[in-house]
Amino acid sequence: MAKSSLPGQLAIGIDIGGTGTKFGIIDRNGNILFAGEISSRGHAEVEGFIDELYNNLHTLIEKAGGPGRIKGIGVGAPNGNYYTGTVEYAPNLPWKGIIPLAKLIESRFKLHVTLTNDANAAAIGEMMYGAAKGMKDFIMITLGTGVGSGIVANGQLIYGHDGFAGELGHTIVIPDGRLHQGTGKKGSLESYASATGVRLTAIEMLEKNKKPSLLRKVPKDKLDSKAVYEAAIEGDELAIEIFDFTGKILGLALANAVMFSSPEAIILFGGLTKAGDLILKPTKENMEANLIQVFQNKVKILVSHLREADAAVLGASALVWEK
Amino acid sequence: MAKSSLPGQLAIGIDIGGTGTKFGIIDRNGNILFAGEISSRGHAEVEGFIDELYNNLHTLIEKAGGPGRIKGIGVGAPNGNYYTGTVEYAPNLPWKGIIPLAKLIESRFKLHVTLTNDANAAAIGEMMYGAAKGMKDFIMITLGTGVGSGIVANGQLIYGHDGFAGELGHTIVIPDGRLHQGTGKKGSLESYASATGVRLTAIEMLEKNKKPSLLRKVPKDKLDSKAVYEAAIEGDELAIEIFDFTGKILGLALANAVMFSSPEAIILFGGLTKAGDLILKPTKENMEANLIQVFQNKVKILVSHLREADAAVLGASALVWEK
Repeated sequence: MAKSSLPGQLAIGIDIGGTGTKFGIIDRNGNILFAGEISSRGHAEVEGFIDELYNNLHTLIEKAGGPGRIKGIGVGAPNGNYYTGTVEYAPNLPWKGIIPLAKLIESRFKLHVTLTNDANAAAIGEMMYGAAKGMKDFIMITLGTGVGSGIVANGQLIYGHDGFAGELGHTIVIPDGRLHQGTGKKGSLESYASATGVRLTAIEMLEKNKKPSLLRKVPKDKLDSKAVYEAAIEGDELAIEIFDFTGKILGLALANAVMFSSPEAIILFGGLTKAGDLILKPTKENMEANLIQVFQNKVKILVSHLREADAAVLGASALVWEK
Repeated sequence: MAKSSLPGQLAIGIDIGGTGTKFGIIDRNGNILFAGEISSRGHAEVEGFIDELYNNLHTLIEKAGGPGRIKGIGVGAPNGNYYTGTVEYAPNLPWKGIIPLAKLIESRFKLHVTLTNDANAAAIGEMMYGAAKGMKDFIMITLGTGVGSGIVANGQLIYGHDGFAGELGHTIVIPDGRLHQGTGKKGSLESYASATGVRLTAIEMLEKNKKPSLLRKVPKDKLDSKAVYEAAIEGDELAIEIFDFTGKILGLALANAVMFSSPEAIILFGGLTKAGDLILKPTKENMEANLIQVFQNKVKILVSHLREADAAVLGASALVWEK
């Protein structure tokens, strides 16, 4: 029997996002052999969603040599709980309350399922295939629609007492600062360093500040971090200030995280990192400025080099091997 | 041979503080069989200090049945590094630079030495003998002259990449807030929630606020958290406000810590906890107010019930068994 036909050599990764659900069949080296995507919003009931997922993946599983070759399924989902396999009160998913997602997928696919939140899955993906390869202590931060995080210490993901650890995006950076519409809390990292946060900063700065800016020509509904980036690389002062402000707040949050768990590196991932040094420079500077001496000039800030389209699915599949 | 005379049943715990160094010989159940104390400040050279420590402990070791009964030595020291066994740039100790303390003690005593910082030692002590018994995820916070912390996740202390994790006292709670004289940073938890911090808050509030207060009769050099406590239990409004303010800031820092590592409990230890509900109530309230829903009403705030005089030595000795 050829080595490649031995059972248990492949893993399925499923990344459930607010809009789409991506999935793939992946080997232990992180090669995505087969991949697909369905909408996360096509079914009011989660069972219908799992049926569609099964029908799509079933074809790929057969192409990959049948279920005997699959060691298990890893799932990354917002508000996913590693301990219970449930997705709890996810504001961006159509299924409300507490959904026993791992159990439901397990009974449909007859394969072992491991579930965690999307940022934790990304952290495991980086540890196995990405910028954190070989590291035992690092923090993964995803800067997307929201701000997620996964914390690895002593080579293990920190899940905390209840499976919900790593909500760095909701830590308060500016007491009584900007209101977060989703949580009702004021001054959290996510209210500034997410895509929504950058957009709000742009709107605020354009209102408060009378200086001319290319961004004044951008329609309000198109005012996103991409538009700010495009203006900034043209040398637009206000756009540069928006990144400076965002980086300062992110840097402060990173300093606090460093003094908590003293990681070797912080891995950043997501849309905002595309702004490169425009965001990384003020982030790094303000992180260093807020660190006490013993932590200074030690912690690397790295940008994930995994392809954005692949990283989440890779990370989810890595849960299978990690387990 | 009676069980009590078997070798390897006892541990030595040494707690090096800014003023005094306490030590004890302790059994596995946390009973302190023999104890003593010397000054931390009697010798400009660390070797002289270790000689004095040896001479004192030697007598106790003989009383306990000789070195054959001692499994090892655990040391808690400010700025102690678990990985390297060094004490690095400790501002409150007379020996400057990087001191290879574990190695020096090891070669003097011919016993294995494990060293960590004082708050980490306290966390291990609580896990073995105190309020965190049986817990796998908790945060220990020592509220003394400074604010120290030890973070336990997955049943392990988080040392971080370089052995310096758990500096919660230096995380920034109020950006551009009160200057910390020791670090030069602004708005750290320690600048508010330490003994020095409470004293500064009292001085500030007495100046800003014109309201009558028992504290106005206290000489400035006696204005400490004990004086504030004594006024507060007499119903002094300003004294109560001082604890309210301190508790609010501590509560915010705890909320951020909870959203990071999602502990089962936070164990508080040290002078400030003697104020009881005067400090615990505003702390708990502001922690809950800043937590997102998934963390609310889950995390216990507990006060250590170990005797203050014993806890540090117990914690240091626990390092021997933990190892």
